[in-house]
Amino acid sequence: MNEIRWPGILQTVKSHTEYLWFQTQRQEEFVCITDEIAKIVMESGVQEGMVLVSAMHITAAVYVNDLEYGLIEDIKDWLNGLCPKADYRHHRTGEDNGEAHLKNLIMHHQVILPITNGELDLGPWQQVFYAEFDGQRRKRVVVKVMGE
Amino acid sequence: MNEIRWPGILQTVKSHTEYLWFQTQRQEEFVCITDEIAKIVMESGVQEGMVLVSAMHITAAVYVNDLEYGLIEDIKDWLNGLCPKADYRHHRTGEDNGEAHLKNLIMHHQVILPITNGELDLGPWQQVFYAEFDGQRRKRVVVKVMGE
Amino acid sequence: MNEIRWPGILQTVKSHTEYLWFQTQRQEEFVCITDEIAKIVMESGVQEGMVLVSAMHITAAVYVNDLEYGLIEDIKDWLNGLCPKADYRHHRTGEDNGEAHLKNLIMHHQVILPITNGELDLGPWQQVFYAEFDGQRRKRVVVKVMGE
Repeated sequence: MNEIRWPGILQTVKSHTEYLWFQTQRQEEFVCITDEIAKIVMESGVQEGMVLVSAMHITAAVYVNDLEYGLIEDIKDWLNGLCPKADYRHHRTGEDNGEAHLKNLIMHHQVILPITNGELDLGPWQQVFYAEFDGQRRKRVVVKVMGE
Repeated sequence: MNEIRWPGILQTVKSHTEYLWFQTQRQEEFVCITDEIAKIVMESGVQEGMVLVSAMHITAAVYVNDLEYGLIEDIKDWLNGLCPKADYRHHRTGEDNGEAHLKNLIMHHQVILPITNGELDLGPWQQVFYAEFDGQRRKRVVVKVMGE
Repeated sequence: MNEIRWPGILQTVKSHTEYLWFQTQRQEEFVCITDEIAKIVMESGVQEGMVLVSAMHITAAVYVNDLEYGLIEDIKDWLNGLCPKADYRHHRTGEDNGEAHLKNLIMHHQVILPITNGELDLGPWQQVFYAEFDGQRRKRVVVKVMGE
């Protein structure tokens, strides 16, 4: 954490970076990470700012929506319909995960969460998720807090 | 608004947060909010920075595109095709808005707009929209300006 | 570039803005811009922060995924399926690019890339792309670095 202080003025400008590691048991798995992000924000000491939560892989997403298990299964089915398994050109490279790349694109790989009064400034039902589309191996999310 | 000043150096680091409230008359309604965001940026006094515009709900989106009413209806039709009304698992909870959650995901719930020389740094046709997919009740967008 | 320095403390708060211009030869063309973004970050001198990379047009996207040419063609085919050429209401204005607007929405027009230790903090396969959906004319991407 880098911190800037100067005498007589209370505010500081800070950045703080952490990495969350995932190794899901299934190829596709959605993991709620709101509590981990909230903890990193608290530890950063940032009172006003933003936190970037961004998958470092091209077959995983980070999104904000409801922690309701029926809906999570609905989202998986919906993505399977829009990004079906198929004989993609990409598979000529030896890969077999073309549809996971497309799911990454449609869901977007990152969110920026506002921090207000030292806390994640989310709506009442907003939860942060890591969505793994090609798992069963170690993958990372970068969490970068910036603010004062 | 938090503001950091120190003698002899003109630049300041600022953050500024406001909330926009919406209660749309229809269940689905797109509202152009470029002017409201521009006003908040001006009031913040930030000259160089970014503004996060983020829906605080999981059945609404914030997006940037054209203020052309034909296109807006095209977008609604297109979303109805990709995110149809259906018997979602989510509806077992008593909800009936599964498709609104999917529309939120495909449209993304937030944008970050650059601020340059004290103004929103948008292209000639870029307008900011709040897209409501499950309205007729009070909902919020957080607008957080950060910069100097 | 705006830079804030004060005696006795090494950190500085900076913002740095550049614009990338594109004029693609084809109507649809994806251009890898990771190296250009990395160069702008290096020139900014920012060690810890974020860089916003945002298309200034409503028929182009910026996304992060794989630099694999088969996959890039897969993505184009997939987008043509989800956003087909059709007789959109938008075309009553004299335009003929309705599907390019929808592709912009599904791919999102911007990314935020973290900067750690003075470098883009990307995963091993993450590359940044400008995706043009209505090209053969001059269009811009704004690149804004913020940090310290």
